[in-house]
Amino acid sequence: MADVRAMREACGVFGIVAPGTDVAKAAFYALYALQHRGQESAGIAVMGAGGIRASKGMGLVTQVFTEKDLAPLTGDLAIGHTRYSTSGVSDVRNAQPYVIHTGMGPLALAHNGNLTNAPALRDYLLQRGVGLVSESDSELLTQLLAQPVPDGEDTWSRRIAQVMRLAEGAYSLTLLTADAVWAVRDPYGFRPLVIGELPGGWVAASESCAFATIGAKLTAEVEPGTIVRIDRHGPVVERPELPTRSQSFCSFEYVYFARPDSVIEEQLVHAVRQRLGQQLAKEAPVAADLVVGVPDSALPAALGYAAASGIPYGEGLIKNRYIGRTFIQPTQALRASAVKLKFNPLGANLTGKRVVLVDDSIVRGTTAGPIVQLLRDAGATEVHVRVSSPPVMNPCYMGVDMPSRADLIACRLDAAGIAKEIGADSCAFLSHEGMMAAVRAGLTRARGHCAACFTGRYPIEVPDVG
Amino acid sequence: MADVRAMREACGVFGIVAPGTDVAKAAFYALYALQHRGQESAGIAVMGAGGIRASKGMGLVTQVFTEKDLAPLTGDLAIGHTRYSTSGVSDVRNAQPYVIHTGMGPLALAHNGNLTNAPALRDYLLQRGVGLVSESDSELLTQLLAQPVPDGEDTWSRRIAQVMRLAEGAYSLTLLTADAVWAVRDPYGFRPLVIGELPGGWVAASESCAFATIGAKLTAEVEPGTIVRIDRHGPVVERPELPTRSQSFCSFEYVYFARPDSVIEEQLVHAVRQRLGQQLAKEAPVAADLVVGVPDSALPAALGYAAASGIPYGEGLIKNRYIGRTFIQPTQALRASAVKLKFNPLGANLTGKRVVLVDDSIVRGTTAGPIVQLLRDAGATEVHVRVSSPPVMNPCYMGVDMPSRADLIACRLDAAGIAKEIGADSCAFLSHEGMMAAVRAGLTRARGHCAACFTGRYPIEVPDVG
Amino acid sequence: MADVRAMREACGVFGIVAPGTDVAKAAFYALYALQHRGQESAGIAVMGAGGIRASKGMGLVTQVFTEKDLAPLTGDLAIGHTRYSTSGVSDVRNAQPYVIHTGMGPLALAHNGNLTNAPALRDYLLQRGVGLVSESDSELLTQLLAQPVPDGEDTWSRRIAQVMRLAEGAYSLTLLTADAVWAVRDPYGFRPLVIGELPGGWVAASESCAFATIGAKLTAEVEPGTIVRIDRHGPVVERPELPTRSQSFCSFEYVYFARPDSVIEEQLVHAVRQRLGQQLAKEAPVAADLVVGVPDSALPAALGYAAASGIPYGEGLIKNRYIGRTFIQPTQALRASAVKLKFNPLGANLTGKRVVLVDDSIVRGTTAGPIVQLLRDAGATEVHVRVSSPPVMNPCYMGVDMPSRADLIACRLDAAGIAKEIGADSCAFLSHEGMMAAVRAGLTRARGHCAACFTGRYPIEVPDVG
Amino acid sequence: MADVRAMREACGVFGIVAPGTDVAKAAFYALYALQHRGQESAGIAVMGAGGIRASKGMGLVTQVFTEKDLAPLTGDLAIGHTRYSTSGVSDVRNAQPYVIHTGMGPLALAHNGNLTNAPALRDYLLQRGVGLVSESDSELLTQLLAQPVPDGEDTWSRRIAQVMRLAEGAYSLTLLTADAVWAVRDPYGFRPLVIGELPGGWVAASESCAFATIGAKLTAEVEPGTIVRIDRHGPVVERPELPTRSQSFCSFEYVYFARPDSVIEEQLVHAVRQRLGQQLAKEAPVAADLVVGVPDSALPAALGYAAASGIPYGEGLIKNRYIGRTFIQPTQALRASAVKLKFNPLGANLTGKRVVLVDDSIVRGTTAGPIVQLLRDAGATEVHVRVSSPPVMNPCYMGVDMPSRADLIACRLDAAGIAKEIGADSCAFLSHEGMMAAVRAGLTRARGHCAACFTGRYPIEVPDVG
Repeated sequence: MADVRAMREACGVFGIVAPGTDVAKAAFYALYALQHRGQESAGIAVMGAGGIRASKGMGLVTQVFTEKDLAPLTGDLAIGHTRYSTSGVSDVRNAQPYVIHTGMGPLALAHNGNLTNAPALRDYLLQRGVGLVSESDSELLTQLLAQPVPDGEDTWSRRIAQVMRLAEGAYSLTLLTADAVWAVRDPYGFRPLVIGELPGGWVAASESCAFATIGAKLTAEVEPGTIVRIDRHGPVVERPELPTRSQSFCSFEYVYFARPDSVIEEQLVHAVRQRLGQQLAKEAPVAADLVVGVPDSALPAALGYAAASGIPYGEGLIKNRYIGRTFIQPTQALRASAVKLKFNPLGANLTGKRVVLVDDSIVRGTTAGPIVQLLRDAGATEVHVRVSSPPVMNPCYMGVDMPSRADLIACRLDAAGIAKEIGADSCAFLSHEGMMAAVRAGLTRARGHCAACFTGRYPIEVPDVG
Repeated sequence: MADVRAMREACGVFGIVAPGTDVAKAAFYALYALQHRGQESAGIAVMGAGGIRASKGMGLVTQVFTEKDLAPLTGDLAIGHTRYSTSGVSDVRNAQPYVIHTGMGPLALAHNGNLTNAPALRDYLLQRGVGLVSESDSELLTQLLAQPVPDGEDTWSRRIAQVMRLAEGAYSLTLLTADAVWAVRDPYGFRPLVIGELPGGWVAASESCAFATIGAKLTAEVEPGTIVRIDRHGPVVERPELPTRSQSFCSFEYVYFARPDSVIEEQLVHAVRQRLGQQLAKEAPVAADLVVGVPDSALPAALGYAAASGIPYGEGLIKNRYIGRTFIQPTQALRASAVKLKFNPLGANLTGKRVVLVDDSIVRGTTAGPIVQLLRDAGATEVHVRVSSPPVMNPCYMGVDMPSRADLIACRLDAAGIAKEIGADSCAFLSHEGMMAAVRAGLTRARGHCAACFTGRYPIEVPDVG
Repeated sequence: MADVRAMREACGVFGIVAPGTDVAKAAFYALYALQHRGQESAGIAVMGAGGIRASKGMGLVTQVFTEKDLAPLTGDLAIGHTRYSTSGVSDVRNAQPYVIHTGMGPLALAHNGNLTNAPALRDYLLQRGVGLVSESDSELLTQLLAQPVPDGEDTWSRRIAQVMRLAEGAYSLTLLTADAVWAVRDPYGFRPLVIGELPGGWVAASESCAFATIGAKLTAEVEPGTIVRIDRHGPVVERPELPTRSQSFCSFEYVYFARPDSVIEEQLVHAVRQRLGQQLAKEAPVAADLVVGVPDSALPAALGYAAASGIPYGEGLIKNRYIGRTFIQPTQALRASAVKLKFNPLGANLTGKRVVLVDDSIVRGTTAGPIVQLLRDAGATEVHVRVSSPPVMNPCYMGVDMPSRADLIACRLDAAGIAKEIGADSCAFLSHEGMMAAVRAGLTRARGHCAACFTGRYPIEVPDVG
Repeated sequence: MADVRAMREACGVFGIVAPGTDVAKAAFYALYALQHRGQESAGIAVMGAGGIRASKGMGLVTQVFTEKDLAPLTGDLAIGHTRYSTSGVSDVRNAQPYVIHTGMGPLALAHNGNLTNAPALRDYLLQRGVGLVSESDSELLTQLLAQPVPDGEDTWSRRIAQVMRLAEGAYSLTLLTADAVWAVRDPYGFRPLVIGELPGGWVAASESCAFATIGAKLTAEVEPGTIVRIDRHGPVVERPELPTRSQSFCSFEYVYFARPDSVIEEQLVHAVRQRLGQQLAKEAPVAADLVVGVPDSALPAALGYAAASGIPYGEGLIKNRYIGRTFIQPTQALRASAVKLKFNPLGANLTGKRVVLVDDSIVRGTTAGPIVQLLRDAGATEVHVRVSSPPVMNPCYMGVDMPSRADLIACRLDAAGIAKEIGADSCAFLSHEGMMAAVRAGLTRARGHCAACFTGRYPIEVPDVG
């Protein structure tokens, strides 16, 4: 997706139980591998002899933590978090894990997702005499977990189950209590959450890419609507009684969010993306000399498109690797643009060629035009845009930060209109059916997916928006 | 008190209701004048159209706030706070005012004091399902205020009265709610709290010195055990039903904490300090040529001693005005010391003189020795130390950060022993009776005072400490 | 090159003359595109009405400059610089451009390269009564330029020529004087330097990739041993009388340093790298199922190797894009490593495959081993390492920061020994002849190159080192 | 002087030779005591085994240096500096000591003063081929010292003497070379410079107050026009051949700049200020009830006025001790002002009293009015302003940063006019003759002084200004 920051995953979570291991450092490396799921803030909380100690800060994982920050975080259990704000408030006070004292002892929470009934939950807590310091879903979840179970034995398991019955929406959580790390996933299973094994320990994470970095092996997914309790004896799965929900894993994780080296639903994301490209070649063929992907996220789909179409694959755009938010506004006279700062064309590779430009998605559509122009200026005679997902036409309420409908180009224009607006010779999107076929081709059993941002069919009740 | 930071006041609070005035700037100037009551952090909260907006930070008032921080803080009501931590945790998350959302709407709180039954209050809240994020008394107070009144009408007045019945200890509070600023003082009246009037508004503050800076006039004290509700129509005093407590205003505020230009219990603090010096001259006369005070806090007592004794007053020590915490440790070879960095003697004024050195208090006793030595090195032939308060021998549980008994010199030695240890020719303290007489000489009606740090007689149940 | 930071280019330079353009912003964008040539500090100097104004700082270009820094830098002429230190002293005082006042007026200088007779030049200046504040070559160059021409007319042209006769070694300079920007290149032409044209202006830069970003077009190289003076009327080439030197452009710029989208010696660097890969396939063929390049720098060579060998090209390693220096040391128990933090293998693409791993160079050899192991762990049955340049065996004295010989793996081991040490099934390097053939295949006229780091044959007298 | 920052001393210098002592820490403590002479930046340079190492930074001495900064500064010789900029450019690059390499070896320089022929010196250097990086006098002095002596033996002594013949104006210098620390004072002796003795070492400093802090004893002044060379064998005085100049020590050092505990010209500054107050009482008596000084600088004069007049001395104004530059602008509605932020009146001390308000000087006159008003508001029935120096009417060219004539109130109004403008019942200044008499009453031999800011009679040729 070349639309810089057009859609943003809300968060990455991690948990570890590993006596004898430096769990804070393990969390650091794991969060480093989950950096793509949140670049605004990061935090680590460890259960030590004197309770929970946490270190949090604004910025990239490597900016937030120093050896000195991690040194005091000793213990056998830890959780961690990387974050974007979906509410737009960027403040270290919103950095997670969120840590509180409760009547059951200390608790830390890391959350990926978005609750759809937050106002009702908020009112519920305020009426019970709980003061709230923020607008965040995560504070709601921790204060709900601080509420005693009204009848019967008061245990963390029963408290978590109680919260799962109250909260609606997307939540993949890691929790830290005195004796255990917990991995909790909503009944829809909107966001990913997996379990792994270390020599002498167990881990949980949003994506398996976090495991490779620390020498852990993926062993299982956290099934939707389940709780995995991990203590020093290993993980135990709990299945609380919950209303039935249809499984709805986010298809956009396959299209763009997840790292290509992660394994989700037992398949490598990179392989799914190659299949998306292959399917796209079948649905939208074109006579051309060269297949070029928009780096880096669309390269697997471009390789797939090239393989299926027989058109040679080549590099056509170089991406400036020196990431940094620049607030320096280009002037008209310079005719510079965010796209020119980010991408440079490889003239000699493109001159005189008919080019298929593969992108993984088009959201706002503001950068596709300048990229097409770059290729033409570098000598491409034709530019055919091929997108390895359907048009994005609907907002997400399940934990992804997206533009409003007014800013989605596919709400205004069809493929032909988009081709015209961005100056391409043609433009085609993968069909919803094609996408689902490519996603599901590698599954070993039937699974449900959410494609609401493409189709508008939400698996959950959502606010009524224009 | 020359014992650098040996005893520290816990906080300063402020509140203002003034439609048409820039209340954030008024709070800024007032906090600047209350800086001596807390130099670790500062904060301002304003009630505006969209609720409460707050700005807080670590450091001196002038370091914490910029014009840009204050600009968005628009409204008619505000509170502010300057802070030391008494618990020792120095963190911006503990900076006040503490702001929460409650079932009654938004609430901000600024607290000076210390609760003596915090563990019981904490347990009370946890058992009711409230998660707590810190160890601070101020969070306890806000969460207690978030609890609904169990029977009858639920109003802020009734909630505050309910909290006053639950909380034991020292608290002078300013609160900010949607329509009013509240000034609340515990039934003992340990810490100061006063009300003033502006053209077109009303203010509350720990000390009246904050009023001069913003053109306000002192109009009343907040009586112990009362609530002053200030809205756009002015202040109204409420007297909730509370168990009877004996009035116990802190005598150390007169001795050292309060600014000399503040008016407390209707008398100027500077005048009280002069009387303390006069009384000291009567109780502990000595034949000498010069009276010198330790700058700046002991100068009024030194002027009083000089006037009552007939011995000339003069400057004998110069204080380095460039405040800054230095972590550079002096080496033995240099024989430098914190005292030499802070004070330089005026040789020609001291040579051949018998000097009375007046200090307001001796706590640890670690700096008196070096100062006596400075005077001797500069040529003083005799040095007689006179202290305008009794020996400090007991910890404070009512909001003052103090050394433990093991570090109080008067727990180890009597006046003669202290004279020997610090190398003085003689040493004398003001008697408890003398101090109370000097304090009360200016009162227009009988009042009770706490002198527990001198006498060990606490007006409240305190933890049993060795 | 997967050896993180094993060899580092010393600097990037830029210059612009463009009345009516915001030259500071143009410099900002150009330096952003030259970021790969120096990430330690950056600076911009502009000639305005009141003389030269400069802004410099430590860090990436996007971190160093804000709109507020650039706003006062108004004028028609500017130069800029991005920097690594080759001497190891990292300090903002060494950030360039270096600005001085001289008897001829103000002067700013930006330097890429390294002088080989610095001690002699230093002594020359000290004996003439010039005090020096640093150890840097750039200060030497500016103070040499401050020296009047002893006979005849004293002009900048004659001063520059005088310095070119005194200084030995590598220097590609941009200079800023009252009326002109100057681009100066040493007689060997070690480091690149090119000239471009804007609508209404002219630019000079280390590489042409800086031109695309600002809408400029490459028009010429600065020939070795020449001075290009650019004023408001455009560029004029000056050829000072100098001793004859053999042209010696750095071949490592082709192998690794230069951006693939730059055009050097009239050929696209990306195309040269593809030819290096093709040549490598001819020299060192192997039976395999998949060609994988080490991202990002070796991908063009991998594409070339795949095309020439007929073995399919695929992605096998994912690079973590979130750059940041981490000082968190991995623990043994975690078995994490810098390589695991940087690269993750794509399991499903590699399982059961015989893999050709193409890298552009091997310097220390410390990371090749872990990468080979990553591929094996991910299921590769064979790993054949192919390197698109000869073994690096000699230090550089012409502006590249390199490890000493003791740290160069090829000084210790031959290809078979390296294969064994890094755990590869085989290892082969491109020959020197093969490299030169691939480099020169695209040239339109004969040119000389320096390959001293591969061959040990230096085109210039260098210090005698073990 | 209540005119906040109206006149500012330019700098403080220090030097030490003390084998076996931690000279960097000694410099730190000494600079801390010289903080009043410059609060913008500070620096320390030490001669160690590998040459000069320096640490410099912006801010107060306690902010600039940490233990970690000082630890590497090992050696037997050091110099230090605290600084204001007189040119207005506030930048760490201007922080001193200024360190260079010369043909004679390393050199560091710390300078207090201002050269009156800087443009000529600048031109001299530029024409000799020296590039200059700043506008500072100190760079001129170091580069002049880098110039070889044209004939005869080239020694530091001869180089320093050569520079003393070239440079005109005020300079009290400490220099650091390989074997010695040098203290150098211009032939007029405008700014102070003294020598002291440590156990096992020697020191030089702008003021003797720096000696007390480190256990050193004042032994001598550096006589105007002399060089004191201090090596491991102690100090040696050199008297270079120079044109005759009349001794002209700055009288404003006595009035305001110097610390009251410093000894200058063998007399305690505090004693001189008391005499100024006594003389003022004689010249400008008034019937009154109370003498109040503006804290802190005017308190000695107030004590002197009280003693000579027989009117009681008392505290009338409290100064807020929490220094910090505030950029928060007061609003009209609040009627707050810089004066109200800085001073609070002691109501009960002032009510119904006729007050003599003693200040040490009036420069801009902008704060005297608000202070008079403060006293009246607090109940003073009359306020008589008495100033212990003559009216300031002329700029200083010898190292003091002053307002221009347009901003000097005494250039516009006579004493009666000033009394009217500031709302005082009367206003009187000490006469020039009275000031000189009070200054000279304690001298043991005849000395010359500069009073040009009062009289307009400059002892040196100065630029022609309107």
